[in-house]
Amino acid sequence: MVITLLSDFGDVYPASMKGVILCIDPEANIVDISHSVRRHDIRAGAFILMITAKYFPNGTAHIVVVDPGVGTKRRAIAVRAVSAEGKVQYFVGPDNGILIPAAKSLGDLEVFEISNCTLFQTRISNSFHGRDIFAPAGAYISRGLNIEEVGRQISDFVSLDFGTGKKENASLSGEVVFIDSFGNMVTNISSELVDFKIGDELVIERKQIQFNISYGFCEEDVPLLLIGSHGYLEIAVRGGDAAKLFMKNPGDEIIIEKRG
Amino acid sequence: MVITLLSDFGDVYPASMKGVILCIDPEANIVDISHSVRRHDIRAGAFILMITAKYFPNGTAHIVVVDPGVGTKRRAIAVRAVSAEGKVQYFVGPDNGILIPAAKSLGDLEVFEISNCTLFQTRISNSFHGRDIFAPAGAYISRGLNIEEVGRQISDFVSLDFGTGKKENASLSGEVVFIDSFGNMVTNISSELVDFKIGDELVIERKQIQFNISYGFCEEDVPLLLIGSHGYLEIAVRGGDAAKLFMKNPGDEIIIEKRG
Amino acid sequence: MVITLLSDFGDVYPASMKGVILCIDPEANIVDISHSVRRHDIRAGAFILMITAKYFPNGTAHIVVVDPGVGTKRRAIAVRAVSAEGKVQYFVGPDNGILIPAAKSLGDLEVFEISNCTLFQTRISNSFHGRDIFAPAGAYISRGLNIEEVGRQISDFVSLDFGTGKKENASLSGEVVFIDSFGNMVTNISSELVDFKIGDELVIERKQIQFNISYGFCEEDVPLLLIGSHGYLEIAVRGGDAAKLFMKNPGDEIIIEKRG
Repeated sequence: MVITLLSDFGDVYPASMKGVILCIDPEANIVDISHSVRRHDIRAGAFILMITAKYFPNGTAHIVVVDPGVGTKRRAIAVRAVSAEGKVQYFVGPDNGILIPAAKSLGDLEVFEISNCTLFQTRISNSFHGRDIFAPAGAYISRGLNIEEVGRQISDFVSLDFGTGKKENASLSGEVVFIDSFGNMVTNISSELVDFKIGDELVIERKQIQFNISYGFCEEDVPLLLIGSHGYLEIAVRGGDAAKLFMKNPGDEIIIEKRG
Repeated sequence: MVITLLSDFGDVYPASMKGVILCIDPEANIVDISHSVRRHDIRAGAFILMITAKYFPNGTAHIVVVDPGVGTKRRAIAVRAVSAEGKVQYFVGPDNGILIPAAKSLGDLEVFEISNCTLFQTRISNSFHGRDIFAPAGAYISRGLNIEEVGRQISDFVSLDFGTGKKENASLSGEVVFIDSFGNMVTNISSELVDFKIGDELVIERKQIQFNISYGFCEEDVPLLLIGSHGYLEIAVRGGDAAKLFMKNPGDEIIIEKRG
Repeated sequence: MVITLLSDFGDVYPASMKGVILCIDPEANIVDISHSVRRHDIRAGAFILMITAKYFPNGTAHIVVVDPGVGTKRRAIAVRAVSAEGKVQYFVGPDNGILIPAAKSLGDLEVFEISNCTLFQTRISNSFHGRDIFAPAGAYISRGLNIEEVGRQISDFVSLDFGTGKKENASLSGEVVFIDSFGNMVTNISSELVDFKIGDELVIERKQIQFNISYGFCEEDVPLLLIGSHGYLEIAVRGGDAAKLFMKNPGDEIIIEKRG
């Protein structure tokens, strides 16, 4: 079965998680989603997981470690999401909301507290539950362990919601959720809210920006508003860095005004 | 079978391509060549692919997405390359030349336009054909689909050629094709043109540089000209950044003069 | 079987090693430990390998290429390490000490000089033995070749030792061995030497620092001393860069003084 890894660990540390997984499930097919989530940015991690998980096959287990509360009393959880068509995916990580939007976007979810310590590494460090708790729990689930064996089902898990942006007269507003490695800003404004037409001249923070369907139609250094491949409004600069141009950080509000 | 991925996507986005591939071909063995090609640098991507593909086994499918024209009318293509010994490799990507040098270096090539949309993802985004078209087409081919099923064979595909540099009296000239993450500059000057001897004192842009066989013989911070492991002249600075020292960018001309 | 790769190659170059491995052993499960070891930093590479290898399954072959002496007369070696419980791991790389701490930490080690050139690539470059010698040797061993077939056993291999730090009255001293991508400084001071209590106020280079059990208990931008997940003292700044704050580089001495 496929196991994905998503973390803010950067380099080096994910490898020992892979070692732990392969000791438990030698057949696991491990795929890195990313290990470069901005450190401790739970919302960015949750968003990346949400736009990526749905492309993975039935039975995939996603192990996610953006975990500013590691070593404290925050719980470890495992989530089972079942789609209307019966496709199942699993999510393992800290109880800080990061798993929830992805699981919800797939279908119905059940959440279990991971407390069965027979699943853990023998020695548990205080700062690397990814390796000592989440990786082995995920590997056992991927290998076929019934998720109910990890611990009791809970309903008071931490939730997380991106919202979908707001439409008001001639403006659309939302939040910058995630900035990718090129400086493209992905917002929480869902494509359903958008009724711009190609070529529409819009304004963000007094800067003009064009709505278009893809980078391929734009000139270098020109700001561009498009529906990203994940179904959310995205702000880009072909050949440039939109986050720098608009001086925005994740979490900042973004207002798009239509000229009139 | 082995499937490789090469792109300028940076982090995060390749993972959904891998999910798509594993849904179609759960046995695929996916290898990243790189996702850090300089954005939209088709020549660099083509060069990296050319020096890397030949090391992969028979049957490998290379999916390549450096695609400044995504969303426009540029075609998607699949290439079959067959070596004199009968080794077959496949290449899938945009029709912008990026696949051609690698395919040609392996053997005879046939090019097919990818137009069979039953192979694509159900919803095709305007900006991520890597995930929606190239990944599924590559996965089907890797799984055994006859490449002729992707669409009609074409001969008017976009080509790309690096040249091999030029020799003139006491000088060799060529182009910086690719700068690696250490600032080593890889040129298009093929080792066959080179008749320098070890220890020869040469000059590039008025700076002295030594020809040697490997980094191991040089001191720190000393510029060094060597035949790279891929068979092309390379300019390096042990422990330093040659591209910065010589102030060169990809595409720039490089002239190496022999003293005396 | 699992094959891991560890290098200072950065991007692009590891892919051709993977191609070579998969030609020899199509079933190999290749895991990247890291390709971002600081260039030529043998001690950092050795440390990363030591804290990571033990998590990998029986039979794993680790191919390691931090190799400033490539192309010179330095030898290539293969190491077999057998733990008290009979778990076997293999290590392949240059004879510069990088493999030794990891192998020793697993159990008894035997070292063989790789000289059987029937295992190598047909054409051997002067600067990329990772691809031409280490990758194929590692792949053959992983596939079942008896390690004694690579060449004669040797005892005069280059060794490497991190030491374990020193305790003196109210101070602990050691060396910064490795700085991770967040600027966390990992020292060679083993947890066994440490008898600080949580909340102890300590001093490094006249800056106050708190001993705690995990990041989760600290405020942003506050320096923190903790036992890292690998069992060594580590200096971190939650949300910051400890190496910058304390202006330390790998190899620098670090002295921790207890107040009062």
